[in-house]
Amino acid sequence: MAATITNSIDPRDIGTPDDWIPRHPEMVRLTGKHPFNAEPPLSLLINQGFITPTPLHYVRNHGPVPKLHWDTHRLIVDGLVSKPLNLSMNDIQNFPYKEFPVTLVCAGNRSKEQNMIKQSIGFNWGSGAISCAIWKGVPLNDILKLAGVNLDDCINEPRYVCFTGADKLPNGYYGTNIPLEWSLNDINDVILAYEMNGERLTPDHGYPLRVIIPGFIGDRMVKWLSKITISNKESDSYYHYHDNRVLPPEFDAELATKENIWYNPNYIINFLNINSVITSPAHNEYILLSNLFNDKMYTIKGYAYAGGGNKVIRVEISLDDGKTWILSKLDQPELNHHIVLKRGINPIPKYWCWSFWSLTIPFYSFIRCDEISVRAWDSTQNTQPRNLTWNAMGMMNNCHFRVKINTIAQGSEFRLVFEHPTQPGNLPGGWMVKSEKSSPKLLTFSKNSELSTINSKISTFTINDVAKHNNEKDCWIIINKKIYNCTKFLKKHPGGTSPILINAGTDVTKEFSAIHSTKARELLKVFYIGDLVESQQQKIMTSETHKAKI
Amino acid sequence: MAATITNSIDPRDIGTPDDWIPRHPEMVRLTGKHPFNAEPPLSLLINQGFITPTPLHYVRNHGPVPKLHWDTHRLIVDGLVSKPLNLSMNDIQNFPYKEFPVTLVCAGNRSKEQNMIKQSIGFNWGSGAISCAIWKGVPLNDILKLAGVNLDDCINEPRYVCFTGADKLPNGYYGTNIPLEWSLNDINDVILAYEMNGERLTPDHGYPLRVIIPGFIGDRMVKWLSKITISNKESDSYYHYHDNRVLPPEFDAELATKENIWYNPNYIINFLNINSVITSPAHNEYILLSNLFNDKMYTIKGYAYAGGGNKVIRVEISLDDGKTWILSKLDQPELNHHIVLKRGINPIPKYWCWSFWSLTIPFYSFIRCDEISVRAWDSTQNTQPRNLTWNAMGMMNNCHFRVKINTIAQGSEFRLVFEHPTQPGNLPGGWMVKSEKSSPKLLTFSKNSELSTINSKISTFTINDVAKHNNEKDCWIIINKKIYNCTKFLKKHPGGTSPILINAGTDVTKEFSAIHSTKARELLKVFYIGDLVESQQQKIMTSETHKAKI
Repeated sequence: MAATITNSIDPRDIGTPDDWIPRHPEMVRLTGKHPFNAEPPLSLLINQGFITPTPLHYVRNHGPVPKLHWDTHRLIVDGLVSKPLNLSMNDIQNFPYKEFPVTLVCAGNRSKEQNMIKQSIGFNWGSGAISCAIWKGVPLNDILKLAGVNLDDCINEPRYVCFTGADKLPNGYYGTNIPLEWSLNDINDVILAYEMNGERLTPDHGYPLRVIIPGFIGDRMVKWLSKITISNKESDSYYHYHDNRVLPPEFDAELATKENIWYNPNYIINFLNINSVITSPAHNEYILLSNLFNDKMYTIKGYAYAGGGNKVIRVEISLDDGKTWILSKLDQPELNHHIVLKRGINPIPKYWCWSFWSLTIPFYSFIRCDEISVRAWDSTQNTQPRNLTWNAMGMMNNCHFRVKINTIAQGSEFRLVFEHPTQPGNLPGGWMVKSEKSSPKLLTFSKNSELSTINSKISTFTINDVAKHNNEKDCWIIINKKIYNCTKFLKKHPGGTSPILINAGTDVTKEFSAIHSTKARELLKVFYIGDLVESQQQKIMTSETHKAKI
Repeated sequence: MAATITNSIDPRDIGTPDDWIPRHPEMVRLTGKHPFNAEPPLSLLINQGFITPTPLHYVRNHGPVPKLHWDTHRLIVDGLVSKPLNLSMNDIQNFPYKEFPVTLVCAGNRSKEQNMIKQSIGFNWGSGAISCAIWKGVPLNDILKLAGVNLDDCINEPRYVCFTGADKLPNGYYGTNIPLEWSLNDINDVILAYEMNGERLTPDHGYPLRVIIPGFIGDRMVKWLSKITISNKESDSYYHYHDNRVLPPEFDAELATKENIWYNPNYIINFLNINSVITSPAHNEYILLSNLFNDKMYTIKGYAYAGGGNKVIRVEISLDDGKTWILSKLDQPELNHHIVLKRGINPIPKYWCWSFWSLTIPFYSFIRCDEISVRAWDSTQNTQPRNLTWNAMGMMNNCHFRVKINTIAQGSEFRLVFEHPTQPGNLPGGWMVKSEKSSPKLLTFSKNSELSTINSKISTFTINDVAKHNNEKDCWIIINKKIYNCTKFLKKHPGGTSPILINAGTDVTKEFSAIHSTKARELLKVFYIGDLVESQQQKIMTSETHKAKI
C-alpha cells in the first residue's frame, strides 16, 4: 500500500460538483476535469503488486459523484419479490459477509488503440483501466433469499436483477442488470460491497454500497447502489442499452441508432474476454546498445486476465510477430487468497483476479527483434486475436499487445527504445498514435454537409473575451482555437447542461474530443462564431500553464 | 433423415472385431479399417440440416466396440456416495428424462490442418468431426442425488464424477471425469443417454448407455458407460491424462512425456472453443467465368459453434484476408427446440447446438478475391485467431477457416475453383496439403540417429510373400513400400497386439501414418527387412483396388 494517500482537493476538481473528493494527483484523467474518469500510470499501477491501493484504482464515473451518508442511505429491494426490503447500511453490515480479491476491468480497457484506428464513442483508456482490490460485502444471494426470491421464479419467464445507482445523469439514473440465475449461484460470489481494501468505500468507488460481480466487466457493478428490482424485463435505464455493447464493426453510432441495434441482445457484454498486456519494458524504457553483453538478461513482464471465472492457463511471448511463441512463467497470487472465501476447495475454482507473467531472456534477443507480442489463453481454450476489431464503443479490445523496439542515436551512443501502442488520455506517444496522421482530423468537416455554415467573414476573440460568456444565459466555449456560442444548445445537449456549464468560457478541446462522435462534431458547426487570437502576454501565460500541467 | 440406413457389414470391417456393426459406406475412415474413427463428407453432413441422421454422425472409437446387451448391462455408481447403486437399463429408463438436441464435436475437429503444419499425435480429422442429434436420457443429477451425493460434499475437498466405459483398451478401460459441481447443476443438462434420434443408441454411439455433456468436447462423453465413481481424485484412466489435452506449441509428445506435463491441470480441455467453417462453396466447387453477370448472386454458407453453453453472437466473412468483415445472417434452429427441455425461459439460456450462417453476395465479388475467410464471436466476446497454433495432439484448432479461390483454364473456358484447406483422412486436395512438400517426409530418418540400421544390401519381396507372414508368431507389415518384421515388437506395441495383428501380412501405410509419431517412425527402422516389389499382374490389381475405393 505504498501509494500516497491524498486528502487534498485536486485543483482540477475545483469548480466542479466533485470539489469535495480527494483524488490522487497522478491519476491520468481521460475526460478533462469532469466527470472523473481516470486510470493510474501503468508502471505505477504494476509497482503496487497484486493489490491496488484504493487511491490508484481506476475510476469510471458517468457524472457527478452523489453525496451519500452511511446513516441515512437505504437499499430498496422491490419488484417481483414476496418480501420487499428497505435496508439501512447497518442492516447490511450485520449480514454474514464474504471478503476476497477481485480484479475490476473497465470494458473500455485499451480503447485508445481502437480510437487510433477510428474515433469511437469511447474515450482514450490506455492499458491501466484495471485494478485489483479486496472487496467485502454481503452475498447478493442472501439478500435475495431474504426478499423471498428463488430460482424457481425463472421457470416460466425470465428474471433479471436490476441495479440502480444514486447517480442522476442527463438520461436518468445509471442502472443495468444481470440474470437472476447468475446472482443466485453462490459460487459466482456476487456481493454488495461496503468495504474496499479494509476500509469503507471511497466516494469514487460507490460509497456507501456498490455491486461487485466478479468476472464481469466493471461497468455492470453499479456504484452508489440504492435499489435492486427483480423484474421479468431488463433494466429500463438508458445506460443499460446505450453503453457497454460491442457492435459489429460495420456499425458506427449513427448507423446503430438508425437501425435500432442497441437493443439487439447479441451485442450486450457481460464477461470479460481473455486479455494480456506487457508492462516491462515500459513505454520509453531503453537499453544502451553499448551495455549489451552476452551474460545480461532481461525479464519481460505483464498482466493477463480472463472472464467469467475462467483461469488464465498460459501466456506466451513472441519476438518474431507471432511466427513462434515462448511460454512465460505464470504467477497467480489469487490462489493464496482462496481461503478468505471460506468455501473450501472447488474442482472448478473460479478465477476472479489478474495473473502476472514473466519471461527472462538474454538482452541480445532484442537486437534483431522489431517488436514483442504477448497473447494469453484461458481454460476455455480461447486466445486473443492478432488484430484489432474496431467497434463503435471502442470496447473489449483484446488484440495482441505489441511493444515496438526502435533504435535511436542519442549523442554518440545507440539506444533500443521500447514503445507501447498508446499512452492513456491525451498523453503523447505510442506507435499507433503515429498512424493517426492518416485518420480523419478533428473538425475537418465533410464538404457536402448540408449543415455547413462556416462564415466567410471570420470574427476573432481573445481568451479574455470568451471568459466573460460563462453562464447559462450566455455560454461560449473554445475547441481547437475556434469559438462556439452554445447558449441555445445547452438544453439540447444529450449529456445535460452541467458538463458544458462547468467549462463555460474556457478551452474545452480535451473534454470535447475525448467523448464526442463525428456527428457531435458536425452539430457543433452551427454554433461557430469566430476564431481565438492571442496577445503576446496571453501566449506567455498559456505556455506557463502548459508547463505546470506537465 | 434422408441418409440411407444400411444394415450390411462394410467389407473393410470384415476380419476386425467390429465385423458385426453396420456402418454407412460414405463415412470417411481416418484410421484405416480399425478402430473405427470416421466423419461424414462435409457436404453430405450439411445437406442433412440441423439434425444429423445417426448413420452419418461422426464416430470416435479408441478400440473395438464392446458387445453389450440391454437386458444384462448394469450401471454401477460407487465411490464417495452414501448409497451405492447398481442399475439395470430398465431402471434407468424408468426415471424422468430430458430429450433435446446437442451438437457433439470431437476435440480433434480440423486436426488435419494441424498435421499439415507438423504431424501431431492426432489423426486427420477434416471439418466434419461434428454432428447434431436429439439425445434422450436421465439427468445425471437425478442419479447422483439417488446415490446421496450433494454439493456440500465439495466444501472441504474436490469431488469428481469419474466415468468408465466398457471398452477395454491396451492401457485399460477408457475413462475420464468432469467436476461434480458441473454435474449437479440442472441447467447444464448432463444426461446419461439411452436414445439418439428417437431410437436406442447404436453400438458405435455407446449402446446401451453413454454420457452427454453439452458444451464439452465429445471426448468426455464416455460411451458404453458401465461405472460412475465419485472421487476426490481425478479419473485414474490412462486416457484421461494422455488424451484430450492442448499442450503449449513448444512441446511435442516426447518432450511432454520427458517433462511430465501431461498431468498439468492447465492443459486439460473441457469446453469447446468458438469455431466456424465454410461449407458452401464446397471443396472443388466452381463457377464458370463466362456465367458471371451482374445480377447473379451466390450464398456463402457454413456452421459455427461455441462451448460451455455460450451463444454464437455473430459470424463474419472477409473477402480481403481480414481487412474488412461482413456480417452474415445467423440461423439458430436450436431455439425452436428449447421447449423440449421443459425448463422454461432462462435469462442465460444455454446454447448446446451448432448455428448456421449465410451471406448472399454478388457473384462478381469473387473476381478479385483470393480467399474467403470466416470468423465467429461468442457471447463471452471471444473470437477465433487468424493463425493456427500447432499442438502435440492436434486438438481444438479454431483458426479462421479460409477457402482459396483459384482461376483454372478448362478447355476454352475459365473457372473459379474453390479449395478448402484440407480434406479428411487420406483424401487428396486442399491448399494446406500443397505446403506439405516442405514438411518432413514420412520415414526420412535423421542421419545421425544411433538407431540407424538400414541394411546396405536390400532384400525384396512381393505382396504375396508378405501375405504369408500374417500371425502372432510371424508378423510382417508393409509401410510405404518397405517391409517390416514386427513379430518381436508385437507385445511392446503401446497400442496392443490386435491393431497390428488385424493387419498382419498387409500394407498398413494408411493405418500407420494416421496415428504414429515421429518417435514411432524412428522405432520402426530396426524392424526393416526389405523393399516391396510388384509383378506386372500385381500392379494391375493394386490399380483396380484403388479405383474401387475411390
